[in-house]
Amino acid sequence: MRYVYNFGEGRTTGNASMKNLLGGKGAGLAEMSLLGVPVPPGFTVTTEACLEFYDKGRISDEIWKEIVQAVNELENFSKKVFGGKENFLLVSVRSGAPISMPGMMDTILNLGLTKDIIASYKGSDKEKFLLDCYRRLLSMFGDVVVGLDNEDFEHALSEVKERAGIQTDSELTVENLRELVERFEEIYDKNGKIFPQDPFEQLKDAVEAVFKSWNNKRAVEYRKIHGIPDDLGTAVNVQEMVFGNLNNRSATGVAFTRDPATGEKELFGEFLVNAQGEDVVAGIRTPSNIKEMRLVFPDSYEKLKKVAAILENRFKDMQDMEFTIENGKLFLLQTRNGKRTAYAAVKIAVDLAEEKIISKKDAIRRIKPEDLVKVLSPTFDLQEKKKAVTEGRLVTVGFAAGPGAASGMVVLSSEKVEKLAREGKDVILVRNETSPEDIVGMHLSKGILTARGGMTSHAAVVARGMGKPCVVGAEELIIDYNNAVVYSKNKKIAIKEGDIISIDGTTGEVFTGAIAVKEVSILDETVPIVTTVRKLLSWADKERSIKVRANADTPEDARIARSLGAEGIGLCRTEHMFFAPDRIRKVQEMIIFDGERRRIAIEEIKLFQQGDFYAVLKEMDGLPVTIRLLDPPLHEFLPKGENAIRRLALELGIEYKDLSKRIEYMSEINPMLGHRGCRVGITTPEIYKMQVEAILEAAAKLTREGYSPKVEIMIPLVGIVGEMQKIREEIESLIESFETDSPVLIGTMIEVPRAAIIADQLAKITDFFSFGTNDLTQLTLGFSRDDAGKFLPLYIEKGILDKDPFSTLDKEGVGELIKIATNKGKKSNPELKVGVCGEHGGDPESIHFFNTLSIDYVSCSPYRIPVARLAAAHAQIGD
Amino acid sequence: MRYVYNFGEGRTTGNASMKNLLGGKGAGLAEMSLLGVPVPPGFTVTTEACLEFYDKGRISDEIWKEIVQAVNELENFSKKVFGGKENFLLVSVRSGAPISMPGMMDTILNLGLTKDIIASYKGSDKEKFLLDCYRRLLSMFGDVVVGLDNEDFEHALSEVKERAGIQTDSELTVENLRELVERFEEIYDKNGKIFPQDPFEQLKDAVEAVFKSWNNKRAVEYRKIHGIPDDLGTAVNVQEMVFGNLNNRSATGVAFTRDPATGEKELFGEFLVNAQGEDVVAGIRTPSNIKEMRLVFPDSYEKLKKVAAILENRFKDMQDMEFTIENGKLFLLQTRNGKRTAYAAVKIAVDLAEEKIISKKDAIRRIKPEDLVKVLSPTFDLQEKKKAVTEGRLVTVGFAAGPGAASGMVVLSSEKVEKLAREGKDVILVRNETSPEDIVGMHLSKGILTARGGMTSHAAVVARGMGKPCVVGAEELIIDYNNAVVYSKNKKIAIKEGDIISIDGTTGEVFTGAIAVKEVSILDETVPIVTTVRKLLSWADKERSIKVRANADTPEDARIARSLGAEGIGLCRTEHMFFAPDRIRKVQEMIIFDGERRRIAIEEIKLFQQGDFYAVLKEMDGLPVTIRLLDPPLHEFLPKGENAIRRLALELGIEYKDLSKRIEYMSEINPMLGHRGCRVGITTPEIYKMQVEAILEAAAKLTREGYSPKVEIMIPLVGIVGEMQKIREEIESLIESFETDSPVLIGTMIEVPRAAIIADQLAKITDFFSFGTNDLTQLTLGFSRDDAGKFLPLYIEKGILDKDPFSTLDKEGVGELIKIATNKGKKSNPELKVGVCGEHGGDPESIHFFNTLSIDYVSCSPYRIPVARLAAAHAQIGD
Repeated sequence: MRYVYNFGEGRTTGNASMKNLLGGKGAGLAEMSLLGVPVPPGFTVTTEACLEFYDKGRISDEIWKEIVQAVNELENFSKKVFGGKENFLLVSVRSGAPISMPGMMDTILNLGLTKDIIASYKGSDKEKFLLDCYRRLLSMFGDVVVGLDNEDFEHALSEVKERAGIQTDSELTVENLRELVERFEEIYDKNGKIFPQDPFEQLKDAVEAVFKSWNNKRAVEYRKIHGIPDDLGTAVNVQEMVFGNLNNRSATGVAFTRDPATGEKELFGEFLVNAQGEDVVAGIRTPSNIKEMRLVFPDSYEKLKKVAAILENRFKDMQDMEFTIENGKLFLLQTRNGKRTAYAAVKIAVDLAEEKIISKKDAIRRIKPEDLVKVLSPTFDLQEKKKAVTEGRLVTVGFAAGPGAASGMVVLSSEKVEKLAREGKDVILVRNETSPEDIVGMHLSKGILTARGGMTSHAAVVARGMGKPCVVGAEELIIDYNNAVVYSKNKKIAIKEGDIISIDGTTGEVFTGAIAVKEVSILDETVPIVTTVRKLLSWADKERSIKVRANADTPEDARIARSLGAEGIGLCRTEHMFFAPDRIRKVQEMIIFDGERRRIAIEEIKLFQQGDFYAVLKEMDGLPVTIRLLDPPLHEFLPKGENAIRRLALELGIEYKDLSKRIEYMSEINPMLGHRGCRVGITTPEIYKMQVEAILEAAAKLTREGYSPKVEIMIPLVGIVGEMQKIREEIESLIESFETDSPVLIGTMIEVPRAAIIADQLAKITDFFSFGTNDLTQLTLGFSRDDAGKFLPLYIEKGILDKDPFSTLDKEGVGELIKIATNKGKKSNPELKVGVCGEHGGDPESIHFFNTLSIDYVSCSPYRIPVARLAAAHAQIGD
Repeated sequence: MRYVYNFGEGRTTGNASMKNLLGGKGAGLAEMSLLGVPVPPGFTVTTEACLEFYDKGRISDEIWKEIVQAVNELENFSKKVFGGKENFLLVSVRSGAPISMPGMMDTILNLGLTKDIIASYKGSDKEKFLLDCYRRLLSMFGDVVVGLDNEDFEHALSEVKERAGIQTDSELTVENLRELVERFEEIYDKNGKIFPQDPFEQLKDAVEAVFKSWNNKRAVEYRKIHGIPDDLGTAVNVQEMVFGNLNNRSATGVAFTRDPATGEKELFGEFLVNAQGEDVVAGIRTPSNIKEMRLVFPDSYEKLKKVAAILENRFKDMQDMEFTIENGKLFLLQTRNGKRTAYAAVKIAVDLAEEKIISKKDAIRRIKPEDLVKVLSPTFDLQEKKKAVTEGRLVTVGFAAGPGAASGMVVLSSEKVEKLAREGKDVILVRNETSPEDIVGMHLSKGILTARGGMTSHAAVVARGMGKPCVVGAEELIIDYNNAVVYSKNKKIAIKEGDIISIDGTTGEVFTGAIAVKEVSILDETVPIVTTVRKLLSWADKERSIKVRANADTPEDARIARSLGAEGIGLCRTEHMFFAPDRIRKVQEMIIFDGERRRIAIEEIKLFQQGDFYAVLKEMDGLPVTIRLLDPPLHEFLPKGENAIRRLALELGIEYKDLSKRIEYMSEINPMLGHRGCRVGITTPEIYKMQVEAILEAAAKLTREGYSPKVEIMIPLVGIVGEMQKIREEIESLIESFETDSPVLIGTMIEVPRAAIIADQLAKITDFFSFGTNDLTQLTLGFSRDDAGKFLPLYIEKGILDKDPFSTLDKEGVGELIKIATNKGKKSNPELKVGVCGEHGGDPESIHFFNTLSIDYVSCSPYRIPVARLAAAHAQIGD
């Protein structure tokens, strides 16, 4: 035989490696047979037969002869006759492509049953069973082979049940079933179709239907989207029926070799006594937990456990098995790698490695880095969330910008957040978008929801940095600040300030009302999954070559980062410290005043900063800490709106008019391209001077106390050699006057395209480059990340962009600039250290790209460090 | 002799080519002698002697020997004795470096005069003359050789005159002069100095002083700024004195061979009878017009005319000559290329070429392209402007953003401009900055003044495009819109709306009150200078290889552009047409409404656009016209401020609240990086569809009428291949349905850095690139041109940047991207046409750079086309 491969005890001609020829399901059935797992016998028609079918336009005589011969062999093996009245052989027909693919014809059960066979059991115990099998065959065959409308069959079934006054299919009497079969036959008639009474004709039609389904619209589209070649073809599996619905010693079920939710190593699944496969899926009767099988079918349960071990060992992964018990005998119908939660995936991969079933490298490869964040984030109770959806409480779905789940009262301003949070209230900050002024409010919120912005808007970036659940770009929400109400555009839902909502930052969902949250703390090593993750990451660390640092601004962030494995701080944003309530006033004085009052304000800020730097450097003792000098435009520190300005004017003792004019003068049309970064360092040199002195003083103090601070000073937004030169000279002269022992590196962020282009010149006077990929992306593409939400989603929908370039690095454009700059920079200064400190530093796909360049380290928010460590290992060992 | 070269009739050993050795002045004197021009005899001590002086720290014996010998030869030649009591020889000593350089010691006259000589003429006619010469010698020598304070001499002179009750120096009696000499000697005494009575000692000290002045502070700084090498050294010219103050048959004067203001070919200058050189400069007596010399000194006048012709012929340029008439005999003291106005420069260069004195290429080389704009712009009457300065009416000096001069009443809003301009008033629009809504207002103003913005702010760009005088970035002005007053920050000047001001866009000056304006129309060929400019440009056109197109949005612009020599339109901004009062409402309807009302609005706009394109294409018949599809963000077309929004809501019949929410929703944080350009084309495809249809319909109509429209459709802000692909496909399908004969090119602006990086891919589906260097500069440097005014001036002051990158292309950064993109693009698509349509397309230095790349054309505002044509010729033939 060339086009047909048998399987079943002692008659198996295929194996697991023949997936391309036999399809996934066929290869699995063959392999199970070889392993001695009880499988109903049958045969697989190969994918080559499918291709031959497309070539010829019909099933060739040669193939059909092989199929008929295979049926004959199956008859001999099972000692049954296909179409025979007694001891009749019924089969299932299933498709099985090399790659699992939705949209194709799935299953026809009970094939081979005819009216003649039923007639010969008329009045016997078996009649009802056979009629039930037959009506199922009629509808399945009608739907998937003949192309009748399944609705018609469903409709007839409902009518019969209604007229008989019964709820479930299993209550159907013989009479009901007879009527149903008649009604089903009428459907065939009405459409000018006939259900063939020749079993071989049934089989031929069914095989052809499977072949044809390879090219139906959904399948073709699926292949197109997923890049699956069109010339693979599908196999067809023909298998003797076993009946879980034969009697009470029969059952059907699905089982996982390990818990797909928790990863625990124990059989997991459910079964239904006296039922056929679809009944479990249909959910009409509630199935029993698989553990109860131990009582009801103890032998089968033990057998299933053994089978589970055999299959895991063979397929080297947790298996999802379909089984049937017929008259107390266990049969496996299918096995495949089981789907699982992120949580279970981690647990299973690590366990399998420790059980020596797979290698540690494989364990690393199996975990999507992103899954680590999910594992370590709080989640909603699944049942409660389902309930909320059912109750219509899902308001909208925005971008899932910060994983985790949170419930709390809606608060529309950061000031109110501060007040309510101090009263112990759980609050969700809801804004059109956030700005640096909201930092404290965000910090005190349980979660953040914005109506605008994308994955790297201010809200998203800061929330991820804080490890807060965050949903952004919920564009359907309309926030009416004046009336303190949030409206949903379509659904006419009005959420008042103070109402409770729940946001899922892992999915982007926004709900009204509360949903219970399950918390996980990555820092709590008593939590088993935390230990497991840490084990996996320690394996990953041995493989990766790219270092991982953290973007951390506070001692708390630094501590978390270090405990999550950060090998330094790649970005410490000094200005985030400016927004603390006790400091912002001083910062405002520094900006507003000239001369002596400015000098005094700067002195006071310097004391604050010195303390900040001292604490951060102490936390990171011995590890490099890259401190970025002031970056945002100064106007970001000044209030907006008349009331706030009036308040500040009063506090500073100046005229409202003067202050308001000053603020108006400082405002910018495109702040992103404005007077910020080293431009402020050039125009107001006393600020950088103050910051550098604060850094050096902090480092000197630590050195005196026996610590080893490793300071790297980073100058933002450099695009011109002269900027770097001027500021470096000033810093160096300060360092000289300090006479510190520990060397201080001076580097620049590369975030302006021009800096990348002149990297060779810059590198000569620079100790390190750090690619600020957020701003570099904004400038290279000309996208404002605060505004791009208006067109980016459509760009991705229309395929103009594959991904949000603020989440995953645009390799062709931004990546090319990074490559040019890295090559030029390292060539011109071989000592140059190169890192990445944008959002992309924590994105696995981007890390893969960075790993192809001579990038020394990536830096990301503390909570993404596990992701980055794992992704860096992936990049090195291959996925 | 090695260190000294004689000059004078029959004794000249140098010539004009020996500038490096003899300095400019020395070489000129030698050459004049060779040409038979009457020059008082003398000799030049070389620059090598100067270097030797610096080497030895003193004048070596060898050099001094040569100088003494040269004096002896001069004595023999003039038959006078240096230091002799009768027939004494007096000389002048002047510095003369190879490159003219301010700050060095200039001139000492009457050297060689001593008290002995004067004593021997005591009581004679000559005594007064000699005393006058001596007191001059004492003060000049004291000032520049000895280092005494010139103020002391001036003070003494004033006192003596005051005591004698006389006004002018020439009224000084012998007694007065004696007293003065005594007072001067006291000044020497008081400072412990002595005026040497040995003429050779005077000479040695003077020569040494000249050498030393080569390294004085001002000279060193000047060389540093202008990149002149420090090791050139200066020469010293020693020349027999001739005395214009000898008697009434004597005179002194300066003359230009042509009029330095108008370029007319006739002697121009002034002279003073019975006077010495400084008297003309001192301005105590009013000199006479040179033409009067014809009557007073007819022979000398004729002689001077001949000399002028000889010198022009020799030096091939208009000459600025100093002369003295002694006893009726003419002597030339100096000749050099004369400074002139831009106007005269053009006239002279063209005339000299036509007189075959210079080649046409040289004529081209001699005119700075920028000067053409000055020549063709209206200017203030010079006398009136001087008067305004004297009267303290100069308020401030901003950036000279649009050449030309204008007076008019201050108006603070475009609406008011429209009203007043219709009443026939001359108005100057004064704003903090302008926006596209101000287009009409700007068009109706005589000039534009903004308190903010740089050379490429909206106001500057649009004003230059319109050829309007414009001053921007007058940061000292504070505009109080509420009270309709403009304040000057420092000078406490308050200009009320309605007051008259005058702005000079060629210099950046802002005056209160009116100043008379002299108009020039480049289109008026009856104006002689216009003919001259056109002649020069026609020569330039033959030399250049880069083509010149215009940025023109209206038929008027197109007509002007064509008449100024545009070879096509490189940028026709379709949206500028949207702001016309009869259209903006429809545009707003298109933006605000969906469905049917939008469709209707779009249909109406299409009619407008079709008419616009028809007219522009007709004007440019046969020449390519690049039409850019909509570029600005849609919110730019919507009103700002509650009143305007309320008005629009009322007109459109919608709720104020809804409209205001819509506008709020559309607002952007960084509009430069926002939802604009092809992004709008993708999200709202009906707008581009409408525009393309309007273009195609206009072209089809013209073709039917026998015209040859050459349409190039340009898609703005492309950064991603998919953007170009999608829009190109849509345009192509529209073209197909139109079945036009004439080919339509489809290209893209390169203004996003990413576009430059992926130029190879873009070029494959693109017929032309046009570098939008304004936006490309903004994005490559990360500078918002609207905001950069806060730090750019300081950057240039501190030398971080050489020039404003919005005026002159940043070659290292932006230029490198342009180079990459041009090379990649042309390699991938050899048919690709490449142009530049940013502001830099009209900047000479940038054009030089573009000429080094494979750029096919530049495009600039109509009024800059002459500049671009000339600059392109310069780039090709070398300056």
